Amino acid sequence: MIGIGVIGYGYWGPNLARCVAETEGCRLTGIADASAPALARAAKRHPGATLHQDWSSLVADPATDAILIATPVGTHHELALAALCAGKHVIVEKPITASSEDAHRLIEEAARRSRVLMVDHTFVYTSAVQKIGEIIARGELGEVFYYDSTRVNLGLFQHDVNVIWDLAVHDLSVLDFLLKEQPLAVSASGAGHIRGRTENMAHLSLFYPSGTVAYLNVNWLAPVKVRQTLIGGSKKMIVWNDLEPSEKVKIYDRGVTLGDGPETVAARISYRSGDMWAPQLSVKEALLTEIEHFVDCIATGREPVTSGASGLRVVETLEAATASLRQRGHPVEIGQMRKVS
Amino acid sequence: MIGIGVIGYGYWGPNLARCVAETEGCRLTGIADASAPALARAAKRHPGATLHQDWSSLVADPATDAILIATPVGTHHELALAALCAGKHVIVEKPITASSEDAHRLIEEAARRSRVLMVDHTFVYTSAVQKIGEIIARGELGEVFYYDSTRVNLGLFQHDVNVIWDLAVHDLSVLDFLLKEQPLAVSASGAGHIRGRTENMAHLSLFYPSGTVAYLNVNWLAPVKVRQTLIGGSKKMIVWNDLEPSEKVKIYDRGVTLGDGPETVAARISYRSGDMWAPQLSVKEALLTEIEHFVDCIATGREPVTSGASGLRVVETLEAATASLRQRGHPVEIGQMRKVS
Amino acid sequence: MIGIGVIGYGYWGPNLARCVAETEGCRLTGIADASAPALARAAKRHPGATLHQDWSSLVADPATDAILIATPVGTHHELALAALCAGKHVIVEKPITASSEDAHRLIEEAARRSRVLMVDHTFVYTSAVQKIGEIIARGELGEVFYYDSTRVNLGLFQHDVNVIWDLAVHDLSVLDFLLKEQPLAVSASGAGHIRGRTENMAHLSLFYPSGTVAYLNVNWLAPVKVRQTLIGGSKKMIVWNDLEPSEKVKIYDRGVTLGDGPETVAARISYRSGDMWAPQLSVKEALLTEIEHFVDCIATGREPVTSGASGLRVVETLEAATASLRQRGHPVEIGQMRKVS
Amino acid sequence: MIGIGVIGYGYWGPNLARCVAETEGCRLTGIADASAPALARAAKRHPGATLHQDWSSLVADPATDAILIATPVGTHHELALAALCAGKHVIVEKPITASSEDAHRLIEEAARRSRVLMVDHTFVYTSAVQKIGEIIARGELGEVFYYDSTRVNLGLFQHDVNVIWDLAVHDLSVLDFLLKEQPLAVSASGAGHIRGRTENMAHLSLFYPSGTVAYLNVNWLAPVKVRQTLIGGSKKMIVWNDLEPSEKVKIYDRGVTLGDGPETVAARISYRSGDMWAPQLSVKEALLTEIEHFVDCIATGREPVTSGASGLRVVETLEAATASLRQRGHPVEIGQMRKVS
Repeated sequence: MIGIGVIGYGYWGPNLARCVAETEGCRLTGIADASAPALARAAKRHPGATLHQDWSSLVADPATDAILIATPVGTHHELALAALCAGKHVIVEKPITASSEDAHRLIEEAARRSRVLMVDHTFVYTSAVQKIGEIIARGELGEVFYYDSTRVNLGLFQHDVNVIWDLAVHDLSVLDFLLKEQPLAVSASGAGHIRGRTENMAHLSLFYPSGTVAYLNVNWLAPVKVRQTLIGGSKKMIVWNDLEPSEKVKIYDRGVTLGDGPETVAARISYRSGDMWAPQLSVKEALLTEIEHFVDCIATGREPVTSGASGLRVVETLEAATASLRQRGHPVEIGQMRKVS
Repeated sequence: MIGIGVIGYGYWGPNLARCVAETEGCRLTGIADASAPALARAAKRHPGATLHQDWSSLVADPATDAILIATPVGTHHELALAALCAGKHVIVEKPITASSEDAHRLIEEAARRSRVLMVDHTFVYTSAVQKIGEIIARGELGEVFYYDSTRVNLGLFQHDVNVIWDLAVHDLSVLDFLLKEQPLAVSASGAGHIRGRTENMAHLSLFYPSGTVAYLNVNWLAPVKVRQTLIGGSKKMIVWNDLEPSEKVKIYDRGVTLGDGPETVAARISYRSGDMWAPQLSVKEALLTEIEHFVDCIATGREPVTSGASGLRVVETLEAATASLRQRGHPVEIGQMRKVS
Repeated sequence: MIGIGVIGYGYWGPNLARCVAETEGCRLTGIADASAPALARAAKRHPGATLHQDWSSLVADPATDAILIATPVGTHHELALAALCAGKHVIVEKPITASSEDAHRLIEEAARRSRVLMVDHTFVYTSAVQKIGEIIARGELGEVFYYDSTRVNLGLFQHDVNVIWDLAVHDLSVLDFLLKEQPLAVSASGAGHIRGRTENMAHLSLFYPSGTVAYLNVNWLAPVKVRQTLIGGSKKMIVWNDLEPSEKVKIYDRGVTLGDGPETVAARISYRSGDMWAPQLSVKEALLTEIEHFVDCIATGREPVTSGASGLRVVETLEAATASLRQRGHPVEIGQMRKVS
Repeated sequence: MIGIGVIGYGYWGPNLARCVAETEGCRLTGIADASAPALARAAKRHPGATLHQDWSSLVADPATDAILIATPVGTHHELALAALCAGKHVIVEKPITASSEDAHRLIEEAARRSRVLMVDHTFVYTSAVQKIGEIIARGELGEVFYYDSTRVNLGLFQHDVNVIWDLAVHDLSVLDFLLKEQPLAVSASGAGHIRGRTENMAHLSLFYPSGTVAYLNVNWLAPVKVRQTLIGGSKKMIVWNDLEPSEKVKIYDRGVTLGDGPETVAARISYRSGDMWAPQLSVKEALLTEIEHFVDCIATGREPVTSGASGLRVVETLEAATASLRQRGHPVEIGQMRKVS
């Protein structure tokens, strides 16, 4: 029975604590948060867990084998490093750190101590993304032409990061899982509409070595919530609407076929508009799948699907996107720092 | 009774001919198309109209006071110029010409001969866009922060233009009508997935003098048809979904309010998530409204809402976007040529 | 080239005239309507057709081989009988007549004179209903458990019939096509909310010999338009949403399976919740398919899919439903009159 | 601090327990369930609560002031009576009992002992139903013409009740809250498609003293989940779609107006198709609102909105509907037993 503690009981921490409490093979040992009202809420929900106003006492708790970190991004590196140094396994909420340099250090520390370091890229564990991954891996889409995502809603303006670090990070983690390649470069533009605040809307274009392109539209100041992604392939195409109660993933037998012959290209194009198919998806909560995977990685020593390295790749892209944003869309290459180090 | 002839009876021409036939104050005099099957279809639908395999005989017809041009973009300038020189009033399908230089010449010729020159920016005449225009003009949105449009579907790959000239032109014409200002610069990126063909998907960012930004996502190779535009303002926000059978335009009393006080900006932000309101819209076909407006402009000498000048402004933006596309997103300023000329 | 005339140029007649004008193998010879403005509209659209303020002169026209009737229900019998007696083939708008007795007479007259008598059950010719018919005929649904339809909108209050004769008639014609059996009995309840007018909302339950049940919800006083039908089978189930622009028909691999064994029924039930599949449907207009079928039946002497007999079966059910409505839902058996005659 | 125990930790009990644990002014004292695995799950989620394999020890617990009952319908009467006799306040899951006679006894016992007796008509506490109630109470709809609800999905076949007692009970509880009158009579028809099981689909027509009619379409064997209700009034109309993430309630300024004058009714009818308005709704969970209301009623002695009497009225209607179902739709009057007693 693996003992797991949670640091941070604000927006996301309660979900982590609940899922730990419901998962076989582990138990919730303690919860740390500097806020007294947050701890009071935690006590009401989890009367069996120890409470810590200072996270360091939870990290020092010998009954706790692993630490889940759900605090502001700027604190991830310090907390995770302390937990790893205390010999704990660690899951860090996304993005893994505020800089790729910090992510490197965590990866090294985890490797040195043979601890599991995982980043909470929750979407990777949804049945929708798992199913899309299978479809792409089976080659059903053919060549992946593009990934085009709209992820907009009203709020939440994060205190310490802009909309790219808050929303685009989801798509970047999904892309890291689906495409098995890292983008070469990114071009980003954005706007901030609240005086004194960071960018609340942004558009990113990502260029991959294989020729695939990805476009991300993220916005904290939209009138409605949209979570829709189109994935175009040479054979088939996908619409992933994460707000659909069922039928989140639809595969369309649609596209363009270029025939042979001496005619002009225009004369040889034909459209294929066939059936649509929506696979049945598991309704299991992604976070439960993720916690189970974490427990399994601790038990078996296996590398997590959303390893520290995937967290690093996503942060490198976020850094490049932010740099491009500051240069009004000038394309920025990704991962230079990593190659040097 | 104004006599109107239609040149081009392919995809769009039949709609123009039908609307002319249904409008009071004008009559369909003739139809010209080089294709014999097209003329046969025209004859079946409009047995009262004269048929012309050569457009010049329709332009020369003294019973025809005005010419509607629905032919490939590359031919617009030659046909419209000939019609104007023959003393006809003219509507040209969008985009008005293949270059801003050509648009200039048409505008000059129409002015010299006091003929009505109109561009068929059909969306401007829809009840949805008219209603949005009223709402913005009344100041209900407050400051317009952004216009963010997704206009994607499968096909039609145009023979002579890329996806920007075919689809983004709709949003540019709507923006020209709504914002009453021309963008300063545009950044565009795109991709072509069919070997030997032009770009079939593109993303544009437009920067306006007032600070408004516009984002356009256009794609000929999408699995589903989407026609959704979000318009964000400092007071209210709009969702315009043109595929909704009714309730195409929804106005949301949502946004962010920044309170006064000595606290940090973060502490003074509050979200406003109020009611939604969908005004009843007229179901009248936009093209009928447009033809009536054309007939009225001919009768009264009034300047059309979608004048040659608006056609020119849109073409200038299309030229700049295409230039940016070729430079991988490098921002390009708009309308330099016009200022020089 | 079959000459076809249209009587009635109000709401539906213009669609019939347009489709005749567009169909190969026939031509629109004339249009009759007592209203001068209606004839003026007809003249503008169809300058090649002769115009008749008195329908009898169109029926007498020797260039006209067939007559399409789109007039109020109460006039169908007189007009259709006159046309048949003049040796014309006939399509009558739905419902075929105001009484089953009248429908019998038309069927007899058509048989005596070997003319084609068809009822305009338009929905039968839609690609959606054709596809559903194929799926049921292939046995994919297994045993058909139920057909449950919601067909509601605001208006149109018909002058001479109640909502059952106006809206439920569509579902009855579809059921007649799909199920290949006539209901034994019907129970109907309804309400009229406008003083002095007939019922504007009704609910029908239909009982079939095979055990299939059908439920129809029709309403002229609904805030929104709904056209949704659920069809449940022992193997699969269908959702037919006629307002969807594409994907009108979705087939769900869902249901309940009853296992074998000595346990209670409750213990042997299991749910099957599998994939969904939406077949690509033709976008051809149903009315064009119908007119082509009519022309083909005239040429070949074949029995139309929506023959006079199917029109009669639908009217018999409408009569029984109206009788049940007057008795507050008391079930009424169907087709007694037919069996007697 | 009111101590609350939960009997039954199957499908619904965990929600009750969680909401008790999250509500101010009360605490979760114990959980009873005969199933050992259910108790194990309860222990994991609520380590602070006492566990009882026999419900009578929880009822006898002096630290427990109130009992929530979430067990099969057939056991409600026995459990609730025992709890009331032990001096506890009680919430019973819907329907309150399996017979109106049993409901009478509970009401009498609660009155005799001055205990709060409440039925868990959860929908009444949703922000959607609360808002609809306000709109009707303000007279915005005018005269309520009809309530027309579709509540269908795949499963869950209940072991001890048919689909009316499982699904229609929701609409009956909402109607009891909204209309402030009890139906006079009900006509119901239904069908059972699984051999050896009760009805899995049913259609109910309810007739009210004021002339309002209500139609309920409930089905356990539908391919998709639908939760849509149309409410028609003489002034405005409502669409309540409970599956919409936001905008669950839409108010339409639509209807029919009958003008004055000597013309026929038909000539004086006009349609009104105005704007739509969707009020912002609270996102607070209904069950939390309900538990707070229960705690408040205990503290103040106030009568709950969903009192035992409302539970009785709903059960009387369920009994009449079941009787009508057995007589193939023959209308059955409601509440005879109550009037006699």
